[in-house]
Amino acid sequence: MTAIEFRDEIVVVDMGFMFSNENTPGIDYILPNTKYLEERKDKVKAVIITHGHLDHIGAIPYIMPRIGNPPIYSRLLTTVMIKKRQEEFPHVLPLDIKIVEKEETIRFKNFAVKFFAVTHTIPDAMGLIIETPFGDIVHTGDLKLDHSGGIPSDKEVDEFKIFEKRNVLLLMADSTNVERPGFSIPEHEVHKNIEEIVKNAKGRLIVGTFASLFERAMKVVEISEQHGKKVIVEGRSMKTNFEVARQLNLLKAKKETIIPVEEMDRYAPNQIVIVATGSQGEEFAALMRMANKTHKFIKINKTDSVVLSSSIIPGNEQSVQKLKDNLSRQGAHIIHYQTSDVHSSGHANRDETAWIHRKIGARFFVPVHGYHYMLRVHADLARALGMPAENVIIPDNGMIIEIAEEGKIIFARKEFAPRNMVLVDGSAVSDIQDVVLRDRQMLAQDGIFVVIITIDSATGKLKKSADLISRGFVYLKENQELLRNARLIIKKTVEDSTYKMNPLNLDYVRENVTETITRFLLQKTAKRPVVIPVIISI
Amino acid sequence: MTAIEFRDEIVVVDMGFMFSNENTPGIDYILPNTKYLEERKDKVKAVIITHGHLDHIGAIPYIMPRIGNPPIYSRLLTTVMIKKRQEEFPHVLPLDIKIVEKEETIRFKNFAVKFFAVTHTIPDAMGLIIETPFGDIVHTGDLKLDHSGGIPSDKEVDEFKIFEKRNVLLLMADSTNVERPGFSIPEHEVHKNIEEIVKNAKGRLIVGTFASLFERAMKVVEISEQHGKKVIVEGRSMKTNFEVARQLNLLKAKKETIIPVEEMDRYAPNQIVIVATGSQGEEFAALMRMANKTHKFIKINKTDSVVLSSSIIPGNEQSVQKLKDNLSRQGAHIIHYQTSDVHSSGHANRDETAWIHRKIGARFFVPVHGYHYMLRVHADLARALGMPAENVIIPDNGMIIEIAEEGKIIFARKEFAPRNMVLVDGSAVSDIQDVVLRDRQMLAQDGIFVVIITIDSATGKLKKSADLISRGFVYLKENQELLRNARLIIKKTVEDSTYKMNPLNLDYVRENVTETITRFLLQKTAKRPVVIPVIISI
Repeated sequence: MTAIEFRDEIVVVDMGFMFSNENTPGIDYILPNTKYLEERKDKVKAVIITHGHLDHIGAIPYIMPRIGNPPIYSRLLTTVMIKKRQEEFPHVLPLDIKIVEKEETIRFKNFAVKFFAVTHTIPDAMGLIIETPFGDIVHTGDLKLDHSGGIPSDKEVDEFKIFEKRNVLLLMADSTNVERPGFSIPEHEVHKNIEEIVKNAKGRLIVGTFASLFERAMKVVEISEQHGKKVIVEGRSMKTNFEVARQLNLLKAKKETIIPVEEMDRYAPNQIVIVATGSQGEEFAALMRMANKTHKFIKINKTDSVVLSSSIIPGNEQSVQKLKDNLSRQGAHIIHYQTSDVHSSGHANRDETAWIHRKIGARFFVPVHGYHYMLRVHADLARALGMPAENVIIPDNGMIIEIAEEGKIIFARKEFAPRNMVLVDGSAVSDIQDVVLRDRQMLAQDGIFVVIITIDSATGKLKKSADLISRGFVYLKENQELLRNARLIIKKTVEDSTYKMNPLNLDYVRENVTETITRFLLQKTAKRPVVIPVIISI
Repeated sequence: MTAIEFRDEIVVVDMGFMFSNENTPGIDYILPNTKYLEERKDKVKAVIITHGHLDHIGAIPYIMPRIGNPPIYSRLLTTVMIKKRQEEFPHVLPLDIKIVEKEETIRFKNFAVKFFAVTHTIPDAMGLIIETPFGDIVHTGDLKLDHSGGIPSDKEVDEFKIFEKRNVLLLMADSTNVERPGFSIPEHEVHKNIEEIVKNAKGRLIVGTFASLFERAMKVVEISEQHGKKVIVEGRSMKTNFEVARQLNLLKAKKETIIPVEEMDRYAPNQIVIVATGSQGEEFAALMRMANKTHKFIKINKTDSVVLSSSIIPGNEQSVQKLKDNLSRQGAHIIHYQTSDVHSSGHANRDETAWIHRKIGARFFVPVHGYHYMLRVHADLARALGMPAENVIIPDNGMIIEIAEEGKIIFARKEFAPRNMVLVDGSAVSDIQDVVLRDRQMLAQDGIFVVIITIDSATGKLKKSADLISRGFVYLKENQELLRNARLIIKKTVEDSTYKMNPLNLDYVRENVTETITRFLLQKTAKRPVVIPVIISI
């Protein structure tokens, strides 16, 4: 998510979320921090969405109400994807969505916004041009180039021609794959390779891919139809996207080519192609259920081939490995992107990116999209292409980059916009979950040990032996002696602490118990559970 | 770990551990299940260790006492690595370690064991040949080939000559990288590339690598010395391995080439090379501390170059990304194996592996080392090389593979040896931690909610409002109303449950509270913490 502010107007570009990672256990999504915008609600005139992927639209239901629900502009498919997602949030105010086409211009008081079409893995992806009196601000969105052997197609050349007569002040461009050499594999090559596989499949063919790789999923159906095969679509998000595609006429196959899974047995195995979600090894997705033998209809056997037509999203390496292992165990033959060109990313490689830089020809450059290290690599590329070092700013979350002196200089302000992560945790959306997350991490490592002590308020002695409750610490059935000793130590610690104490200082007793028991458990088990003493004084 | 049983004798090959992964939170290591051997202690005549890496020696301190502490045979460096590790386990029985050289033969009643030298990333790696009356069983250990442009060196050709006159019944060979095409990058090429980088470094050069890549770490010092630079060694395991190398004369550099970090400032930046652990982004390792600005002596600056001379171990992708991001943020220039040949794995690629198969020429084949999917790929390779399908068994953990009829057939028995994972969890070593691990996973997602209820045993009414304790659930300070409502619901649930109940059935009350509160919290927060009611009846 990027906000562009000029005089008293702000335009927001994209509104995605990040998926949870190993540092955010239990968290559903991570949202951009929008406090800066919330404090300037009146200035926010528009939200422009470059394409319909979750990392660009996912935060819309959470953020729009907070920034005054300004109008959202995007191309047709993107707007449909936004509306589909919105259905899951019935209580949120209706969005004001405006469909734009790339020839249109949206005008604001101080500037205008134009669009250009870009190639990505979903149709209707676009970049945008914000026209200001000092030059254009160009944001590419996610993009790659359609090309053959490193020569961009006529369509791309045509599309980028618009920049010939433009005065581009600032370029913000996709950095995701800028470290990879040369040009990316063009999608049409992936289609050709998948076609070979479909044609030659001697048994069932299962194609695991992302539902978000819209074009590819549609293409698999068209290819299958051409080779006289039937297609089964598995996985909720895949089914949704096929519905959308049908609705917008993006799917060129006949209706009867797609059959319900229940009819699979009417056809020979080599007439069946299954398009399924779960190529990341997601626990309950279609492909993983097949691998784990829990899929209701599809049992993997030795004549099946599985194409994993997707890359591995960072963080999913172990689950993809498990997926491949379990499919192998049942005898399936696996084809994946590391050994065969059955996947291509939607992001430009180094030489493609250089081509885009040359075509757009900006004065200033800010690399966007990708880990910080990638932004740095992209900045190095811009400099290698001749941009002066002081004209390039590597952004970080919350950074405020200013172009001043009527477009003569660019610099990062010293102060940042509020930028701590906003976490979606069940129904809570908050940026102050640090304590909770730290606790979860500790609980995951060593568990918890709760000590309940009933104390006689008159004597300071225990009314009965302490109750001990633990989860995630040690296997209690095997550790009866540990518990017995813990009870003895607790009794002694409490009674030593309260000896001749009047009135009872329960905080002091609690502290002593925590300290003694933590030490005792560490010594006996080499584990450090969260120890919580509860003292009930009667 | 593999056990080979022939008549009344068993030989164990390697005794490694697996690192903990996302499915085993809080666990230190995962050990092989050795129950089968524990029940046949008297048969275990020897443990043979192929090389000194932790995934081959790491379980020794845990398992040796359980299987009767049989003699361990290995080559010099491996035995030193085993002894070093054993120092961390002072209470364990002394090991009976015998140094063997590759020309030696160890004789047992029914068979003999011979060795051959293999190329890996640590010196003294070896494979072994178990001679039986029905032919040889060959285990390669971890290996690759030393070669130039795909032509194995004379040394390799020589070493594998021993198989020319042998009758090999069964080959067990390393599968780790068998999916990668061609030959692996030879280590001497990596050294050449690192030498270029060392020579041309205009500032400090920091080489992050595994301490276990013994040869490479030593080579960096020798190269640095040749170019008039000083070396600083950072990280405990790296320091230990340098000590061992010095002791065994494996380090060919002068003593004064390695300087303590405190003397760094006496030299110009371009005279300094730092060899550091932490290339996997391990939280407290040297390189990560530099990246996080918590290293006591080394602050990263814009003139530093960092070479990450290692691959990414599956599961560490996110931490390596964080490492690269944070080094970038401080301006360091990063060179890594995905963009430059500064790392080579210790495992043979496909064509190397094929060469090894041809040289050894076995009747039966069992692929070892690597994920199940890799074993399958390796099995496919063996078949492609001409081995009949029925002569190849893809093993799984605990599988018992039998060669019968005097070496005429091979098959997997239907029954498995005990094979559930043995987990090292602090000082506990056990194979029944399932409940504990499940709890840890639940605690990590949604935390815990403990309800302490003091009840009047006569009336069944609450003596006071319930005490609520929660960790890792929601941020309590922000949720006072939730807690207030929870207390009301608890009071009502308890008093409704105990109404006219005599005697009190506390289990019934507890169940009701758990159910009601779980539902209430889920509804209010969309989280499902572990709810534990404690009822104290007075």
